[in-house]
Amino acid sequence: MANPVEVDQKGKFNRQTNRFTIPFGNGEGELPVEAGRYRLIWAEICPWAHRAVIVRSLLGLENVISLGTVAPMRPDVPRVDWDFSLDEGGVDPVLGIQYLSEVYLKTDPEYTGRPTVPAIVDINEGKVVNNDYFRLTNYFEIDWAPFHKENAPNLYPENLREEIDALSEVIFHDVNNGVYKCGFARSQEAYEEAYDVLFARLDQLEERLATNRFLFGDYITDADVRLYTTLVRFDVAYYAAFKTNRNRIVDFPNLWGYLRDLYETPGFGDTTNFHAIKQHYHLSNHIASDDQKSLNILPKGPDTSIFNTPHNREDISGKKEKFLI
Amino acid sequence: MANPVEVDQKGKFNRQTNRFTIPFGNGEGELPVEAGRYRLIWAEICPWAHRAVIVRSLLGLENVISLGTVAPMRPDVPRVDWDFSLDEGGVDPVLGIQYLSEVYLKTDPEYTGRPTVPAIVDINEGKVVNNDYFRLTNYFEIDWAPFHKENAPNLYPENLREEIDALSEVIFHDVNNGVYKCGFARSQEAYEEAYDVLFARLDQLEERLATNRFLFGDYITDADVRLYTTLVRFDVAYYAAFKTNRNRIVDFPNLWGYLRDLYETPGFGDTTNFHAIKQHYHLSNHIASDDQKSLNILPKGPDTSIFNTPHNREDISGKKEKFLI
Repeated sequence: MANPVEVDQKGKFNRQTNRFTIPFGNGEGELPVEAGRYRLIWAEICPWAHRAVIVRSLLGLENVISLGTVAPMRPDVPRVDWDFSLDEGGVDPVLGIQYLSEVYLKTDPEYTGRPTVPAIVDINEGKVVNNDYFRLTNYFEIDWAPFHKENAPNLYPENLREEIDALSEVIFHDVNNGVYKCGFARSQEAYEEAYDVLFARLDQLEERLATNRFLFGDYITDADVRLYTTLVRFDVAYYAAFKTNRNRIVDFPNLWGYLRDLYETPGFGDTTNFHAIKQHYHLSNHIASDDQKSLNILPKGPDTSIFNTPHNREDISGKKEKFLI
Repeated sequence: MANPVEVDQKGKFNRQTNRFTIPFGNGEGELPVEAGRYRLIWAEICPWAHRAVIVRSLLGLENVISLGTVAPMRPDVPRVDWDFSLDEGGVDPVLGIQYLSEVYLKTDPEYTGRPTVPAIVDINEGKVVNNDYFRLTNYFEIDWAPFHKENAPNLYPENLREEIDALSEVIFHDVNNGVYKCGFARSQEAYEEAYDVLFARLDQLEERLATNRFLFGDYITDADVRLYTTLVRFDVAYYAAFKTNRNRIVDFPNLWGYLRDLYETPGFGDTTNFHAIKQHYHLSNHIASDDQKSLNILPKGPDTSIFNTPHNREDISGKKEKFLI
């Protein structure tokens, strides 16, 4: 659940801003790009962190930036936190920490925000150096290029960056954060406003995808990664838990084909854990209600095997390959 | 929510039995069939009461048995009750009562069960004389035949009664009460067992309706009324509120066409109040969790205008008319 300070007087959810936004690069005061120096911490349930994990996989950065995983359910401690209970002994094997807050507080002992994922931790210092989910994939795409695998896709082509950024901005406000604005609204008016904006935007994207295999045509870009992480959680979590129930994604023919096209691409579906996502949104302390928690009953549906059904989206572009190399 | 006594040690929901089951008829100790003598009390949200209201409408009993309506939201009193807050002054204009429990307690001062709808109240005595939702439509169909309108449909043809009763029994356990077994389960195991039974039965009904316009062929029977009242609440309420989320009804081509065929028939859709249904299942004190209540935010979706779209189910029977007269 949002911190109380993230809900305004009209009941609207206003997401906290990122605290650690120093960019990667070779300039003074920038974060040096060095293989083995950083650890990316994510939660499988988190759409913001999932972006970074998908792009890390698509670009082949797995051996360059290591990965730590917090559990889908937030721990039962007073502070809003994430923990490493999936790991042996409940401790991240590289950072040696039990709670994500530890590396946030090591960086800034006065830190009072929610500790969030994704978080880039400098392994030697044990400090969070960047938690800028909005720009992180772009750093991977641009600044980490020297470490990309051979024939890595070009997810952020220079000639499209301005357009990609503009669309990502819109997708962020209306869709990625839009579902949270529905779920965390504390007034009927704020909820309905967010709901209307969300579905108007999905209607528009549905139209765009009628003639474009991906958001920018024949090839997957960074914008697709951003849209994917919300769409893939929509029917299994947001639809019921956040009341985003005008339609499910399976009800939009183009968005549904598009979603499967991405899901069936290595880097997307293989980093998507439906069980963890369902656990978090339906049962976790900070989202689910007291009754749901105490009942601890996880919805059995919907059937996610349909994510592997044929989509025939390649017919739109006439191309089998999905990436611009 | 169920009374605690209605949940067993394994977390299974066991619906309380009906208390007042004296039949209508001319035999000794039976309830005399008399126009103007009784008032049917229903809640628009209640699938059990909705059956009786649909059959009353189909048979033209509106001027013979009057209708009182309790509010969709249960009142904020310690007792599990229903109230007449929709009426002027919060009092039923015929019975002069504020709470449904009043007529239950007048009949039996020791009554400790949940006061339920449908309830047939003898107007002069102000007492509940029958709350047998399972048999009530059959009384309307058989014992109240002298008061049926001209050319009233035959919803319970003698030659099919045995089969209709057998199917209604199955639909009751697996579907009508099945959704409640999912929603009121208090263990994961009990929930999943009810979920599996529910969807296995819906799959079977889906198949049956591939070659039958209605459950017993070309004409609507009492069994269709019973199935309808659960199906029409499924996507707008049970899917999220009771976690019956393997599929929605719109995902079953035959069930969805069948549901619209009924919905678009006078007596069905015109007695279906989606807003009241959504309010009750998503917000009411006895179903929704504390958080949902306090938030008081009603899901805006799903879009119910699609209930009025063409279904072409008449193609299956080749007949336009839906009733055996």
